[in-house]
Amino acid sequence: MGDAASDESSEDADPREEIMEATYSALGEHGYADLTMQHIADHLGKSTSLLHYHFDTKEDLLVAFIDHIISKFREEHLPPDDLPPEERLREFLDLWVFDPDEQERAAMHLALLELRSRGPFNEAYREQLVRSDELLRGTIEEMLRDGVESGAFESVDPEPTARMIAATLDGARTRQITLDDPAYTPTVRDELADRLVEQLLADAEASAGDESGG
Amino acid sequence: MGDAASDESSEDADPREEIMEATYSALGEHGYADLTMQHIADHLGKSTSLLHYHFDTKEDLLVAFIDHIISKFREEHLPPDDLPPEERLREFLDLWVFDPDEQERAAMHLALLELRSRGPFNEAYREQLVRSDELLRGTIEEMLRDGVESGAFESVDPEPTARMIAATLDGARTRQITLDDPAYTPTVRDELADRLVEQLLADAEASAGDESGG
Repeated sequence: MGDAASDESSEDADPREEIMEATYSALGEHGYADLTMQHIADHLGKSTSLLHYHFDTKEDLLVAFIDHIISKFREEHLPPDDLPPEERLREFLDLWVFDPDEQERAAMHLALLELRSRGPFNEAYREQLVRSDELLRGTIEEMLRDGVESGAFESVDPEPTARMIAATLDGARTRQITLDDPAYTPTVRDELADRLVEQLLADAEASAGDESGG
Repeated sequence: MGDAASDESSEDADPREEIMEATYSALGEHGYADLTMQHIADHLGKSTSLLHYHFDTKEDLLVAFIDHIISKFREEHLPPDDLPPEERLREFLDLWVFDPDEQERAAMHLALLELRSRGPFNEAYREQLVRSDELLRGTIEEMLRDGVESGAFESVDPEPTARMIAATLDGARTRQITLDDPAYTPTVRDELADRLVEQLLADAEASAGDESGG
């Protein structure tokens, strides 16, 4: 699948975009620790000199790759801002669930987990990981804040609530892929949707009721 | 610190126990990918031949190590069964919080994260990781079930709730250590204690109220 992608590339394709796609496939196939520039070049169907023209080192390329998946997540996968807060939060939770047959996605997340375990030893990785965390939490905080402001959700503090949601989804995915247990993310998504979202809604209704009643 | 431990060892100390303690320190110092039998032997203050007398390979030793930390967690850290369910659950949540100055503990969990990312490629590791997950979830399920049966907690389904709690705590710790962000686990512990535990208690009170009132 990775190599086939290069056959579809046209003359005017963005070479950095193609390198990122090849990195996605190569990370999924080889993992982080064993990944070489040659593996990425093989998936790209080009020479390593092309890679080195764009990136001095494998580390530089991987820093750009983390940036790439963050941007892609923001641009392509986030539920639209104009959805009602409840629906937006539910769609966001759904993003984390993936089918057992999405092997490449699982393999890529596993490779990222290896890379993440290098965070404390690699300042450039860690900066990108912290940025990714801030973005993720910022997205969740914004959804919660919009819901609270519109009166759809109860008055929660978005910061710690977003931190908990980010941790829960990350932990579920990590356990799903490392234990090869496809039940983890769907179960945890359902728990968050049934328990947390319902709680946000129920308490908002209760306080709306209090206001109209008192 | 690791080497000093061997000075304290007496003639009748359990050699496997000492190897496990040396593995803990060596994993914390070198991480998983770079760990060698020589590193463990250095922390033990003995030769690698002693290690090989007990374990054929580094993989065998690490499988025994996962087993060791599971046993230690069960024997030494779990809150006593006879505590009231609410207090037991709160003490359990506290176990996951550690101070930024517990560097060895953070480093060891980071090394375990690297090892966990090898789970899908290593059947022996994965079996131990699955066992560890079942034990963790089983412990949480038992606390929830006891609370429900005694009427202290609302009537939740312990299985998915335990899975969510395990994922949340794991995700918080993973993010704390990989992002070097000491706020993660304490914030998430507080959220679980304030939100989930209070919800379990409030709903139990509400349903007790329903019963006495109706």
